Amino acid sequence: MRVRLKSVFVLYLVVSLLGLLCALLQLGQPCDCSRRSGGGLKEGMRDPPPPPSQLRRGAAVGGGEGGEALPTIFVVTPTYARPVQKAELVRLSQTLLHVPSLHWLVVEDSAAPTPLVGGLLASSGLSYTHLYAPTPPEKRRKPGDPPWLRARGVEQRNRALRWLRETRRPGESGVVYFADDDNTYSLRLFQEMRSTRGVSVWPVGLVGGLRFERPLVEGGRVVGFHTAWKPERPFPLDMAGFAVGLPLLLAHPGARFDPEAERGYLESSLLGGLVTPAQLEPKADNCTQVLVWHTRTEKPKLRQEEQLQREGRGSDPHIEV
Amino acid sequence: MRVRLKSVFVLYLVVSLLGLLCALLQLGQPCDCSRRSGGGLKEGMRDPPPPPSQLRRGAAVGGGEGGEALPTIFVVTPTYARPVQKAELVRLSQTLLHVPSLHWLVVEDSAAPTPLVGGLLASSGLSYTHLYAPTPPEKRRKPGDPPWLRARGVEQRNRALRWLRETRRPGESGVVYFADDDNTYSLRLFQEMRSTRGVSVWPVGLVGGLRFERPLVEGGRVVGFHTAWKPERPFPLDMAGFAVGLPLLLAHPGARFDPEAERGYLESSLLGGLVTPAQLEPKADNCTQVLVWHTRTEKPKLRQEEQLQREGRGSDPHIEV
Repeated sequence: MRVRLKSVFVLYLVVSLLGLLCALLQLGQPCDCSRRSGGGLKEGMRDPPPPPSQLRRGAAVGGGEGGEALPTIFVVTPTYARPVQKAELVRLSQTLLHVPSLHWLVVEDSAAPTPLVGGLLASSGLSYTHLYAPTPPEKRRKPGDPPWLRARGVEQRNRALRWLRETRRPGESGVVYFADDDNTYSLRLFQEMRSTRGVSVWPVGLVGGLRFERPLVEGGRVVGFHTAWKPERPFPLDMAGFAVGLPLLLAHPGARFDPEAERGYLESSLLGGLVTPAQLEPKADNCTQVLVWHTRTEKPKLRQEEQLQREGRGSDPHIEV
Repeated sequence: MRVRLKSVFVLYLVVSLLGLLCALLQLGQPCDCSRRSGGGLKEGMRDPPPPPSQLRRGAAVGGGEGGEALPTIFVVTPTYARPVQKAELVRLSQTLLHVPSLHWLVVEDSAAPTPLVGGLLASSGLSYTHLYAPTPPEKRRKPGDPPWLRARGVEQRNRALRWLRETRRPGESGVVYFADDDNTYSLRLFQEMRSTRGVSVWPVGLVGGLRFERPLVEGGRVVGFHTAWKPERPFPLDMAGFAVGLPLLLAHPGARFDPEAERGYLESSLLGGLVTPAQLEPKADNCTQVLVWHTRTEKPKLRQEEQLQREGRGSDPHIEV
């Protein structure tokens, strides 16, 4: 008995010492925080849409977001070919890459998907869907037209709405946000919009000729709007200033952006089919924090390029910009 | 003897079982990937500079970067007050937040640090140092002056060089990059510059009137430059198109940006004191990939704001934009 007990203990001692050694060797190793493990969903526009469980769940960023239970934010970004397009999309993609549980719907204004946007999405590390919808020729903005003459992105945003209706289950949790590719978005904005039930709203900086436009809030309810332009609009809000709960959107199959809407009434044409102004949900500390800015990127001057191209010495066309 | 041995083993058994229990309780806990843990260094410009061991080591992003051995990238960003300043810095900070082992040197063109920049840095999650250096009045660009008349950021970049010389040890590994707050930076750019020994170079998109400017490379060496403007400059490179190894910079205590440099020669005034053009290290696939874009943000029109302010109804000045 004495020998057997001793043997058992000696064996246990040896095994546990080995375990201790292994544990010591692990000490000080960096923990694996890679965002790319698990593979971002690289869904093409013809692939079947991913069930929500396949949408990427990224690492949390700040303020306690995280976990599987987060409703997916569907970010809808219309985009069109121009010299700064890739730069804008790269910059935006790197902001979105911080946000957990996000699916990016990029809709090109083109007759077919382009390799530039496709390649950028494929290497973005994001969960995304690549769509396209050409703006009809008669509605296309001509070079030199002032930016307010024709609203851009209408067909593209409606294409994304169709995708959501075709692929999401009724009652599925989620939030839909229309994020143009040139604005600036604080990460805090996505935390604010995550809890949207119906339609949530917040201030937008540097828009409408003002430092900011914003809903005015009293007692937790929206009672008016700080805006200088057409304040009589039902929803005097910029596209960047609201998000829509996915269940509300799916419950109103006719709600969409009206391509014929009068100037400034595009946002109202969607929101009017979903809520009344009194039902808006104020976010960002009762609409007192600016977390999104209506920045616009200058059109670069490419005079020297045109000159060199006439001389046959233009920048290598095989290098993507 | 039997009892004593048994007692020792029983004691050991109890202690090791407790250890096993602790280990089991740790299983399945998420590993702490918070960028904020350990406190991002919030160093004021008057605090003592952090020793390199205190600089934040962030989580790795893509391409196998990570670990303690990475040389720190010191990103130098001159900035000045204007309506889009906060938006630009927020956007840039969110790109830098992906990059491991990075320290942000933000240098304001002001007589004192501003609360706007200070607050933004404090909540950025980045390792940073907040500096300031006012541009002398006679060198200040006046409203309406064309952007090329006076180079902005000269005093501020030199202030950052002084900080590096005052706080870094000779021979300390690191890379210095001058990143203006309005450009667009791909995350891949930081991976490329990490291995800089002397001075590394790469293409810059949408600059100098061209789709891109770039060094021309043959046999792994820079043999010329694709540029349309003053090609006779010793280093016809944009500020965003190169990085400098910290040891090289520290080994040349006199190297700095010349505030009197002729238009277009600012980059050459620093680089000429460090290397010859033949010594430049090409990055980004022998300078065939555009990973940084010289984007410029439009100055927003604030006519309505001025009108409302005249009427005493301007946007709430307590809300920061």
